[in-house]
Amino acid sequence: MKLSKAILLATGMTILAATPAMADLKPEDAIKYRQAGYSFMAWNMGKIKAMAIDDSEAFDQKKMAAAADAIAGIANSGMGALYIPGTEKDVGNVKTRVKPEFFTDAEGVRKVAVDFIQASNEMQKVAQTDDVDAIAAQFKKLGGTCKACHDSYRKD
Amino acid sequence: MKLSKAILLATGMTILAATPAMADLKPEDAIKYRQAGYSFMAWNMGKIKAMAIDDSEAFDQKKMAAAADAIAGIANSGMGALYIPGTEKDVGNVKTRVKPEFFTDAEGVRKVAVDFIQASNEMQKVAQTDDVDAIAAQFKKLGGTCKACHDSYRKD
Repeated sequence: MKLSKAILLATGMTILAATPAMADLKPEDAIKYRQAGYSFMAWNMGKIKAMAIDDSEAFDQKKMAAAADAIAGIANSGMGALYIPGTEKDVGNVKTRVKPEFFTDAEGVRKVAVDFIQASNEMQKVAQTDDVDAIAAQFKKLGGTCKACHDSYRKD
Repeated sequence: MKLSKAILLATGMTILAATPAMADLKPEDAIKYRQAGYSFMAWNMGKIKAMAIDDSEAFDQKKMAAAADAIAGIANSGMGALYIPGTEKDVGNVKTRVKPEFFTDAEGVRKVAVDFIQASNEMQKVAQTDDVDAIAAQFKKLGGTCKACHDSYRKD
């Protein structure tokens, strides 16, 4: 259910872009919102990493679950709708590192989006447990789906 | 359960700030992360408003639930940990509008934080339904808790 919703949202950008609310969205704001989402996920990825991989922070079940909830909530929010026309390049001093390929390779984008959302949902599940090894393993999988998108669709 | 976790996270900033991972967090990054969280919530508040208040966008159950999930996920993620020492003022060109009172009025901050988290959790629940009136009413309550914090702790 979660995944089918996610696929719908991730791949429904054309439909979403046609609605009035999306038409009102300025390209510079769309870029800022999507960067905000990635940035906030990065903070929460850092918390999971600190508790499950680096051991630089004590394992805290509630904090772990909360971090994964935030990531999954953002991942499932339909960020595809933020890649509207006009957001393929910088808008004034609002910079974007997205590659042109993101806007032409619909199949490839769908794949990285679905992999990422699926991994974030699995991360959310495993983060409810205190199985640190499973959490660490899923963190690496999730990070791999971030990297897959960066490698293909983000400039260095 | 959700709320007790949230209170713990919202009010546990002193403890969190003392952990190594938090000590590694640069003030400018803490400001950016918290602004990212608020910004991404604002985008999702806009979607709920468009569907439930302005009717500028057709009601979509999955999109509604996803928007509220993102907001609740962020609200419950322990953003209090992002108000570390050094973040009470601009850091270079990373600007903040937080008022000094935020760092001295622990009781008041706890109240607005708990009200906000509670309202976001209620929003998440009601957004699972197709009761647009209830969604609209809860959206206004949630918006009120945003405003309460802005009025007391954010510069214009």
